[in-house]
Amino acid sequence: MRTTTGWQADGTTGELRRTPLQRRDLRPDDLAVRVDHCGVCHTDLHAVRSHDPAAGRPLVPGHEFTGVVTATGSAVTRFSAGDAVAVGNIVDSCGECPMCRAGQENFCQAFPTLTYGGVDRHDGSTTLGGWSREYVVREGFAYALPAALDPAAAAPLLCAGITVWEPLRSLGVGPGTRVAVAGLGGLGHLAVKFAVALGADTSVISRSADKADDARRLGARDLVVSTDPDQLADARDRFDVVLDTVSAPHDLRPYLRMVAMDGTLSMVGYLGPVTVETMDLLVGRKKLGSAGSGGRPSTAAMLDFCAEHGITADIELLASSQVDEALTRLGRNDVRYRFVLDMSDLDISPAAR
Amino acid sequence: MRTTTGWQADGTTGELRRTPLQRRDLRPDDLAVRVDHCGVCHTDLHAVRSHDPAAGRPLVPGHEFTGVVTATGSAVTRFSAGDAVAVGNIVDSCGECPMCRAGQENFCQAFPTLTYGGVDRHDGSTTLGGWSREYVVREGFAYALPAALDPAAAAPLLCAGITVWEPLRSLGVGPGTRVAVAGLGGLGHLAVKFAVALGADTSVISRSADKADDARRLGARDLVVSTDPDQLADARDRFDVVLDTVSAPHDLRPYLRMVAMDGTLSMVGYLGPVTVETMDLLVGRKKLGSAGSGGRPSTAAMLDFCAEHGITADIELLASSQVDEALTRLGRNDVRYRFVLDMSDLDISPAAR
Repeated sequence: MRTTTGWQADGTTGELRRTPLQRRDLRPDDLAVRVDHCGVCHTDLHAVRSHDPAAGRPLVPGHEFTGVVTATGSAVTRFSAGDAVAVGNIVDSCGECPMCRAGQENFCQAFPTLTYGGVDRHDGSTTLGGWSREYVVREGFAYALPAALDPAAAAPLLCAGITVWEPLRSLGVGPGTRVAVAGLGGLGHLAVKFAVALGADTSVISRSADKADDARRLGARDLVVSTDPDQLADARDRFDVVLDTVSAPHDLRPYLRMVAMDGTLSMVGYLGPVTVETMDLLVGRKKLGSAGSGGRPSTAAMLDFCAEHGITADIELLASSQVDEALTRLGRNDVRYRFVLDMSDLDISPAAR
Repeated sequence: MRTTTGWQADGTTGELRRTPLQRRDLRPDDLAVRVDHCGVCHTDLHAVRSHDPAAGRPLVPGHEFTGVVTATGSAVTRFSAGDAVAVGNIVDSCGECPMCRAGQENFCQAFPTLTYGGVDRHDGSTTLGGWSREYVVREGFAYALPAALDPAAAAPLLCAGITVWEPLRSLGVGPGTRVAVAGLGGLGHLAVKFAVALGADTSVISRSADKADDARRLGARDLVVSTDPDQLADARDRFDVVLDTVSAPHDLRPYLRMVAMDGTLSMVGYLGPVTVETMDLLVGRKKLGSAGSGGRPSTAAMLDFCAEHGITADIELLASSQVDEALTRLGRNDVRYRFVLDMSDLDISPAAR
């Protein structure tokens, strides 16, 4: 086994502890990656807050990271030591089901192996995430990081980015599409950048006008204030796609009313059970959808698109030792627009000292 | 005013009474239509059962009928006396809103005028439906009935037919599309005929295997028994479109699981509030939609398609005096597949005798 250092949930105080971690020895198709930057996602916050140490499964969060290959297994063909790479929220899948064969490993019918809190398909161990200085990953689930992208600001592309990229692409967003992004946070601000770069006529929906300047700076045409009845009425049936990035449970009706005929309200991320009034779908033949994460081909395509269009996340870069501060501020949505942790304050191999 | 005869809800016994009815004198753009055949829809059953005579609004059901023009207003251009026509569930709309301008009068933002139980846009009267011997309708909401179609069996096309035609067309069903129709009733059997004629690979989903022979006779490849766990598992992610014609509230999850990646579960008719688990949409980027009724251009297109492909409803034709029997049997789903009332036992103009 290899030893490295990471931030592990304490489980009693809700804080993270700097802890030595073990990584597996490289299998033939594995890469060892020095993690340089890892994003902080709402999923991480939920995982830390709900972590139960009595369950006996260690928790090291982090599932959107960039870094550099330090070693390769004997059968690795696509990467060499020194290559810049990126890893997202899944690190393996069955490879045989219809979803995997279609390049949608995120929907693997045997369930994909999550980057942390998952179960390794070979040794049954609990996967430990990217808030650590080293990660060992199957090469097929690592992506070449384009040189044009800043490695810190690119990290959030691997979860926040792909989560909004997939629905925009699968819904055919392009020139002429009228898109509204509800919620201007980590996911939402990337969705606006993507939609604008795809040529869509893009708006932002927000509960207040506070972010109107940000919305326009990101390329949006305007911001619709969802708490203003007049603005809601004006936006009736206006958008072909409403991408709902709001992560807390909420009433879908105001967003559905803004969807144009034959359009779609797509929820990203997991909202649990949701209730809609059939009539709000029926009148205008509207559709309600959801999407999350992405498959390997679309993740690679997204990174190419980002390199071509110069798209990365707007981030606040913190030392990894500030992780508790990042979680606290994220809990009150005090971030524009994504925290990224700089892992250089962690020893990559403490046992070697 | 014109006087005719129809079947009016008693409101106390839940039965229908043969009653003299008044129709408006023809406006310049009106037709008088001798109603020959009118279908019996679940909506009619609900309307009769929930009718409150104390509300002071008379109820004459019936909103899918065929007949012959007997008189025309001074400005009518498209029809002459003697023409065979068909009328559906809406008889007017504002004509000015974006939905009306898009030919989706069924989604008129000022609400379309329903064929019965609606409010006439000019005189404010309650509209009285097609279970009567004469109807007066604005010519723009009457359709030429193709000579190739049997007038009795064509009547249900105007509600049951258009209700399933619109979602099939708007979802792009055609050669290569895998379609499942859930529920083989009045709507469902027409949906199967349409999907097959559109070239789709068509299946039926039903709670029992009772209708497997009927499904195949209608052109379906097979019938999936939704209460059989093995058949459900086999049908996972199988259909691009699942058209849900089941009219009673029910669990959508088994149908959603049968929807293929990027596919749609479309509910037709009104199910009230429905709840879905986000994860059932997210895994496979599935969509939930709804549709109901149709606009004028698609209604006319559907009738042309039916004439070309020889499609009408499978009906049981009853004398209009058997209307209570029809409602009773419909209430227990004892019909294959649509009741149509023959109105020739009603006086068209009793005052003239």
